[in-house]
Formats: sequence, C-alpha cells, structure tokens
Amino acid sequence: MTNTVNGRLAALRNLMKQAGISAVIVPQADPHMSEYLSPHWQARRMLSGFTGSAGDLVVTLDAALLWTDSRYFLQAASQLAGTEIRLMKDGLPDTPSIAKWLTSNLRNGEVVGINGMMFSTAAKDDLALRLNARGIALNADFDPIDAVWPDRPALPKCPVFVHEDKYAGKSAAQKIDEVLTAARDQMARSIFVSALDEIAWTLNIRSRDVKYNPVATAFMYLAPGASVLFIDADKVPASVAAYLQSQGVSVLTYTSVKDFLAALPSDARVLVDSARTPAAIVDILGDRAVKGSSVIAMPKACKNEVQVEGFRQAMLRDGVAMVESLCEIHQKVASGTPLTELGVAQILRRHRSEQPLFFDESFGSIVGYGPHGAIIHYEPSEATDAELKPEGILLIDSGAQYLDGTTDITRTIALGTPTDLQRRDFTLVLKGHIALSEAVFREGTCGTQLDILARQFMWAEGLGYLHGTGHGVGHFLNVHEGPHQFRMNHMPAPISLGMITTNEPGLYRDGVHGIRCENVLLTVPAMTTEFGRFFKFETLTLCPYDTSLIDLDLMTPQEVEWVNAYHARVRTELTPLLSPQAAQWLAQHTNPIGI
Amino acid sequence: MTNTVNGRLAALRNLMKQAGISAVIVPQADPHMSEYLSPHWQARRMLSGFTGSAGDLVVTLDAALLWTDSRYFLQAASQLAGTEIRLMKDGLPDTPSIAKWLTSNLRNGEVVGINGMMFSTAAKDDLALRLNARGIALNADFDPIDAVWPDRPALPKCPVFVHEDKYAGKSAAQKIDEVLTAARDQMARSIFVSALDEIAWTLNIRSRDVKYNPVATAFMYLAPGASVLFIDADKVPASVAAYLQSQGVSVLTYTSVKDFLAALPSDARVLVDSARTPAAIVDILGDRAVKGSSVIAMPKACKNEVQVEGFRQAMLRDGVAMVESLCEIHQKVASGTPLTELGVAQILRRHRSEQPLFFDESFGSIVGYGPHGAIIHYEPSEATDAELKPEGILLIDSGAQYLDGTTDITRTIALGTPTDLQRRDFTLVLKGHIALSEAVFREGTCGTQLDILARQFMWAEGLGYLHGTGHGVGHFLNVHEGPHQFRMNHMPAPISLGMITTNEPGLYRDGVHGIRCENVLLTVPAMTTEFGRFFKFETLTLCPYDTSLIDLDLMTPQEVEWVNAYHARVRTELTPLLSPQAAQWLAQHTNPIGI
Repeated sequence: MTNTVNGRLAALRNLMKQAGISAVIVPQADPHMSEYLSPHWQARRMLSGFTGSAGDLVVTLDAALLWTDSRYFLQAASQLAGTEIRLMKDGLPDTPSIAKWLTSNLRNGEVVGINGMMFSTAAKDDLALRLNARGIALNADFDPIDAVWPDRPALPKCPVFVHEDKYAGKSAAQKIDEVLTAARDQMARSIFVSALDEIAWTLNIRSRDVKYNPVATAFMYLAPGASVLFIDADKVPASVAAYLQSQGVSVLTYTSVKDFLAALPSDARVLVDSARTPAAIVDILGDRAVKGSSVIAMPKACKNEVQVEGFRQAMLRDGVAMVESLCEIHQKVASGTPLTELGVAQILRRHRSEQPLFFDESFGSIVGYGPHGAIIHYEPSEATDAELKPEGILLIDSGAQYLDGTTDITRTIALGTPTDLQRRDFTLVLKGHIALSEAVFREGTCGTQLDILARQFMWAEGLGYLHGTGHGVGHFLNVHEGPHQFRMNHMPAPISLGMITTNEPGLYRDGVHGIRCENVLLTVPAMTTEFGRFFKFETLTLCPYDTSLIDLDLMTPQEVEWVNAYHARVRTELTPLLSPQAAQWLAQHTNPIGI
Repeated sequence: MTNTVNGRLAALRNLMKQAGISAVIVPQADPHMSEYLSPHWQARRMLSGFTGSAGDLVVTLDAALLWTDSRYFLQAASQLAGTEIRLMKDGLPDTPSIAKWLTSNLRNGEVVGINGMMFSTAAKDDLALRLNARGIALNADFDPIDAVWPDRPALPKCPVFVHEDKYAGKSAAQKIDEVLTAARDQMARSIFVSALDEIAWTLNIRSRDVKYNPVATAFMYLAPGASVLFIDADKVPASVAAYLQSQGVSVLTYTSVKDFLAALPSDARVLVDSARTPAAIVDILGDRAVKGSSVIAMPKACKNEVQVEGFRQAMLRDGVAMVESLCEIHQKVASGTPLTELGVAQILRRHRSEQPLFFDESFGSIVGYGPHGAIIHYEPSEATDAELKPEGILLIDSGAQYLDGTTDITRTIALGTPTDLQRRDFTLVLKGHIALSEAVFREGTCGTQLDILARQFMWAEGLGYLHGTGHGVGHFLNVHEGPHQFRMNHMPAPISLGMITTNEPGLYRDGVHGIRCENVLLTVPAMTTEFGRFFKFETLTLCPYDTSLIDLDLMTPQEVEWVNAYHARVRTELTPLLSPQAAQWLAQHTNPIGI
C-alpha cells in the first residue's frame, strides 16, 4: 500500500505542476454531499490508504497531510505509517484548519486546486474568501483523480426500483408540486437537487448504490411540467422509466447534468441548497441560481400518516428481532456457548432478515463488549472481535431498513451481576433518556433546546457525553437525516409534528465500559391552549431495558412508573409475535420494578 | 399633536421630492444602536407622535406607516388616531416586513432613503440586498430630521465622571491593551466602538445621558498608543480629561469622528462590530474596516472579582430596600392606608435611594396589580394607576444602579388569601425558577440550551411565557447587556464564569393576573472531572418569595428544601441591616415551609 500511495502522490504532483497548482484538497466527499460514499468517490482513501469514514487530504508539491478526527487518530496513524503523509489531529487546540494551514504555508500568488463538484457552494465560497484574503487563488476546476487512479471503480450500477405509494403515502407528482410551490417563496421557479436522499424521497425511488442507504446515484431538476432525473440509463428498468414518466419526470444521463443546466434560459431562477449543492453546479448556473435552503428537507422529515403507520409496523418487527436476539445472546452466554461481538452482529442480522419487508441493515452494527463499548463508533472486526463472558456489560446499537420504515436502537445489557458503578452510570443515562421521552414543548422549539433534558442528570454529577443526543431518521432512507437533531450545536429546525428522531444519551468510561439507551421518537400533538400549541413524543421503539442495571435509589417514582408502563406495552405488543422461548424471556425481562 | 404630525410629514415629503426619494425609513435608533434613546434621537416619536419604545416609521410620498410590536398595538392605535399614519402590527402573520412592504409598493428604479448613522452596517447591507433584488436603490445618506424638527433637543450635556478602579477592578489602560490584543485575532490593529456601554466599560467612565443607563454619548477609537474618545468637550471636566490622558486616551469632539476616520491611513485595519456600528461609519472606513464582532462584549459580561464583590454588596443593600418596601406595602394594605401602584414605585425608590452608593433606578419600576400584572411591560401612570386592596396579587419588577453593581428583581406577592389558581400558577413559575438556579452545565453551554429548564413545568401543563427567561446585567451599566441570554432564540455566547444573568420565568393570564419570579445569577465553577469543566449558578439576589403563594402539593422535597435554605440565607444576611419592623416582617416571611 505504501508504494502505491507514494506513487499516486507523485503522479498527482506531476499533474499539479502542469496546471500551476501548489496545493490540492481531496475531501471525503461526493457530488451529492453524502455521508457514506460509493467506491467510485473514495479518492481520498485511494490516495492516502486511510480507510476511515472522515478525513480530508491536502497535497502540496512537497508535503501531504491528512486531517481526521479523534475517532480515527489511532487507525490513521497506523494506516499512514511508512507513507509521507502527516496526520493532522482535527479538533485539538494546536491543529490549524485546512484553510489556516494553507494560508500559513503558501505564498501570495500561489494557487490551490479543488474539484468544484466535491465542495458545496457554501464551503467553496468560504474557502475562497479565506485564501483570497491572503492573496492565494482558488482554482475550483481541478480534477486529477481519474488520471491518477487507473483502476477507479465505476459508478454504482444497482437498479432503481419504485417505493410504492402504499409505503410512501404520497405520489411523486404531488410532492414535486408541493416543493415547487415552496420554492416560489424563495423566488425560484425550479429546483436543482444533488442530495441523494432528497431525490429518492421526492420521486419515491430507491436503489442500493450506497451501503446501508437505499439511494440511487443521480441529480434531479424539478420544474413545472419539465422535471428531469439525471441517472445512468442502465440503472433504470423500463417499468421505472414508465413510472417516472407518469409522474412527469424525464430521464437523462447522469453526466449530461452540466450541459443541461448550462442550456437553461437566462431568466431561469433555480433554487439550490447552498450547503448541499456542488460549487461547480452553482457556477454553471451563475445568476440563474437562487442560493437558498432545501425545500425538501422539512417535508421529508415530517412523516405523513402512511409513513408513521409504516414506522409503527416496522418497529413491531424490529422489536421481535431484537427480543429474539437478546434471548439468544443471553441463552448462549448463560450456557457457555462461545459467542463473540461479531457473532452477536450475525444474530441480529439473522433475526432481522427473517422479518417481512426487511431490505438491509440501516448501518453497521455496533456491538461493544466491556471497554469496546466506550469506543463510540466501534464496529467489531476480525482483528478486535471479543468473546463474551458471563460478566460485564454489552452495548448493542443496530438497525434495519424495512420497506415501510427505518429503525435504530441501542440497548446496553449486563452479562453478569452488574457493579454499583455500572448501575449508577446506566441509571443516570436512563433518567435523561426518560426525561427527553417525556418532554412537552411549545411549537417552534428546536432540538438544541431539548437536548439538555437528556444531559442534566449526568451533568449534575460531572459526567456527560460528547455526541449529539439524537438525529432524524429517514423513512426507508438514510438513518441519519436532517434538518433537525437533538444536540448542543445550534439546529434551527423546529421539532415538528411527524418528525422521527432518536433519543440516545450515553456515558463512556475509557477502557472500562460504554452505556447508551436509544429509542426512536415520533413528535405528536400534546395539547392546544391559550398559550399555544404543545407537542410531545411517542416512543416507537419496542424493546425492554435491562432492569438489572437500574439503581432504584436514583429513580423518582415517576421514572419507575415510566419504565413499568413502557415494559407493559412492549410485552403486550410483542408477545403474540415471538417464539415461545423469546416470549418467556420477555415476560421475565419486563417484570415491574420497584414494587 | 395631529396637526404637528401632518405638518412635519408634509415638510419631510418636500425634502424627499427635492432629493428624488420615494420612501424614507425613520427607525427608533441612534448612532450607538442604543436600547434607550436620549431626546435628541427621538425623531420617530417626533414625526409620528407615537411614544412607545419600539417602532419604525416609513414615509412615502403618499403614505405613512408605523411598524410596532404587540406590546404597543393599543397605545399606537390611540396615538396615531387622527393622523394619516397607518399602524402595521409587527409579528402578525399578515404583516409584511418593512423591506417586503417597500419591495411590494415601490417600482423598479425608485429610491429609498435612510440615514446611514441610524442603521448598523449589517442591517443596511441586508436592506440594500433586498431592495436591489427588486431594482430599488438605497440612498444611505439622507438625513432630513434637523430640517423638519426646528425645536430638536440638543445632544445631552451631562458631565462625565470616572468609575473608580476600586469598583471597576481593572484600569482602562489595561482593558484597552486586552481588547486590542483580542482584536489582533480578527486581523485588526485598531477598534472603532459606537456602543455606549462598551465605551463606558472600557474607559471606566459614566454619565447620565440616557435615562436609567449611566452612559455618556460618545464614540471611541482604540489603537496602540493612539486611542481617542469622541465626546463634546463641555461634558468632560478637566479632571476627567486628565484621567483619560493618564490612560492613554485623547479627547476630540463628538462631531469630528467622521473626519478622523476618513483621515486614517489606507493600510489601517479597524475592527467594527457589524451589528452595532453605523453603516455610515463603515462606509467611511471602506476597505480599512474589518467587519467582525465585538471584542468588548465578552470581557464586559464576565465580571472580575472586584465587580463580583461589588454585586454582592449591592445585593445586600438592594435586599434591604426590597424588604423594607415589602414590609411597608404589607403594613399599608393591612391597615387600610390608601396605596396605589405609583405609591409602591415611590416606596421602592425611597428605600433604594437611602442606600449607600445609590445612583439611580436601573429601569422604570413595573408595579402591576391584578390584571395589570399580565401586561408584561406595564409601568403605572396617572392614567392607569390602580389602588391596592387586601386581595389579589401584585407583581413588582424593579432595580437600581449602585456604584458597585446593578440590580434587577421581581417578586409577586399576595395581598389577601390567594386562590388555588394563583398558587398553582405561582408554583409552576417558581419550580422553573428553581430548576434554572440549580442547573449544572458543561463549559460551552449557551443560554438557549438552559432556557427550557425554566419552562418545562409550565409547558407540561400547556402554559408558558413568550419573553426570554433571562438577560445579562451590566456592572453599574445597562440593566440589559449581551452577548448572552437565557432564551429560546439562538444565543451563541456560552454562559461563562463571572457572567451575571437574570432568571425570570413568568406566567400571564390576560385580564386576570401576572406572575414572575426574578433573581440575578452569577456563573461559578461547579467541578472539573475527566468529562470536562462544569459550571453552576450562585443566586445573588436576597429577598424572600411569598410562601403563601406556594402550593406544596406541586413541589418536590428538593424544591421545598431549596426555598427553605434560600430563605434562611436571606434572613441571616439581611436581618442585621434592617429596621426592627422589617426584621420582624422578614422573620415571619422566611419561616420554613413544608415542615
């Protein structure tokens, strides 16, 4: 790998010299600003040898640097060893940003090159501003990747299929009409969309182009009576093409998008989402671009009644898979049958894949035993796989894509008799989890305001977690979806009716254990009074907590009652669907506490 | 008044025609972006006859419109009656913004005029963007006010005095040095400041130019060894001029500021706060302006140890004045001695003014009896003054400027036997007030995140309040100061050590009663653990709550204990300083509850 990396960097530098470019930024990105990338877009991985899911590479004529965050410091150091690439530890006080490093290390008059398809227009404008302030130019049309990557994988070719209205609850034609109406508020007559989940939602289509995310690689242009999906023709079966035609959408090839946009009339007013549209696209549109925000994100996040009913049904099936899995895990551990973290992940996948409407997992299962539970993004591998023993605690964060809904659940279970510290930590996490579940809030409240409800009990003891408390969940779509979240950073989107959001506080002690409780919440009406409209949450996830980890001395009577009521509901709803052993296990594990 | 208004509008329109201007905006503003205006800057009031503290006037050649918010709908309607001015109810869904109204009612090619000294550079840029998008021009150098206001009051001439280091805790020279160092982080070598409280804080000077706000009308330019205060010479006694000289600050006349800035060398890099610096100033600076954020707001908000000790001492005196006042009010009501809301305000002022280091009130006392308590910005006047009876509840929100600190306190008291609704409402407010007081939070938490702690109990019952939960308080300076607040809107400034913030949830039932509990909180360290630094609040305000309004059935044991501990502290600290009657009253009113 080391030789490959150094050779590719040398080839890249030749191209840079020919183009008069002093530094190039190769980001972890695709033209759709995706969270997960298909292999075709893994240029940063190809050039650096680093396989982590976050990290940007900067190559100058005499240096190469990789910025990544604390999750990947160890992995990056190991994978970069022997290459010339220097690790830049993002987030540490002494680590400059890429822009700051470039302005400190390049001279007035030098040129930085980027591929404008890999940067949002907002990100590119910000970078240009910072560089130009120091007399450094930005060439946003430098794309050397094909030339230095001879065996570059092709774009994914997975076929597209229709997500039927009986699941989606609204036709593509109607959604197109509604988002075009919303775009008029931003003084636009048409919309360009590069975000793959927004395209999938709008057109009610799905595919398997990106692992865990059932999306198709495409661009989309929406205009009254003239909407276009830009996608490779061999991905679109005739029946899907006919379906798209029936919704008023023509199909053009993926690569024709730039020519199409360039040819739009000069008075076109095309709304683009500044944060998610490639700079190169916006540059082609020029004055025809209306830089604004997505008009699709909010209607996509606020699920309709059909989608909500689908989520409820999917949660029943996922609850069955979880309880069957937990029962099997407990039995194996109790009987001394060998079982590892990877084995647990396989059990989960097996039980989920037996459920009707199962499509895929929604992300790689996190199964962390003992100290592994404290590594927040830990995914077991052959190299790390740990064998479970009848002691310690196990964190399991997993989920599935069903045709009628997407799930994401975390449970932390004791494999032996828990210690006082384990019970205390678990109970503080659970108290925050319950407080957020029970929140009642005025219309207009955003996730930044609600976040503290989940943190307050840990903070009072000087404990806490550094990740967000919850994220939006797509409907048979990406398990992470905006525009809303529960987190400390400002998230202006109000938590609105029909939104689906996770509730997942945690507590992680390095080298000791990790704890997290995660359910999926639906926003529902609470009441309307002379003081306004108030909303609350309905918990959709159906799976018991491990009550052996609850320290009753730390719980209020209301919290105990909440756990007992939730467990009674889980038992009632799941028992008829379970195997006899799992039903018996569930009965034992949903006994009322504090009685 | 009506004739005056119409005559002035006619004169204004003549000037508009001569200048080729189709619409002019006259805002409630001064060149310092002040909350309270001295009479010289009350142009909007002069032109409209409307005396409210918020509202902007738009005059076209054939229309005149006043935008104001819900606090002033009734008052504005009454004061505008008989004039041609149309009331625009800001905040209602059907009311367009001023920019939107202008773009809908002017034609391509028309010109809007404003005085660029009355708009921040950020506000002017935003307005220009919106107008220009519709082909409407903005002339930011149109100032017709002198010409249409023959009897315009002069600028205030109150003398400036030095706020001694024994109160301020840090010399002006040192503060200048520190903020210039901070400005270098924004790539600036000097700073221009128009905000009057920032000038007063930096230079340790005070005056009486603005009611309740002990500031002087001035501009300030800070540069290493070359700082200048722009202020009218007859406001600066020789001793103050000598003091300023000793701190490295020269004095130039107020009106010379534009010429001074215009003459700065072309390579000057002058930091301006985009939100608070007049557009006209920034236009003069041109490329020499570094548009950024204030480097004074944070050090001003984070009080040093001398200031904190001053606050503690001021709170003792203010607590004495409050308890003496409450005792006198109770005695008068109980004995049938006539007493009105204005009488209560006078009692408060008398007891405060008897305290050492008293300078002024910090705002006009809000004394709202019964339904008046539900009018959030109610100030009693001769026209509204209500007589107190031995029944119902009274809301008192008041405060003072002492040389060593500024106070702001609200107490709601029962004058008879409270009803169940009164006790329930009061207790829900008090529970939120206690929850915020008791918060422990990780360093970096902002007020937007903490706000819900004060609202949660009301929201759970479908109740609430529409104002912020708390605001920063200056040190012998403006009672409202940024950059931090507790409120639902995003306030990015973290709640930091040494910050002083009010905690004032409330509940208002139109036509029935209003309830608010307000203390002033100091941010102090809580603990440092492997999970970070944690902060908490110390309550500075010393004055009992009316325990007859507490419904014990709604209180947790911890909340009851909080009230009892606070009351014990108030009694211990204040009793030695009280008159015998007040000491006896305090003893009765701090008896433990729930025993």
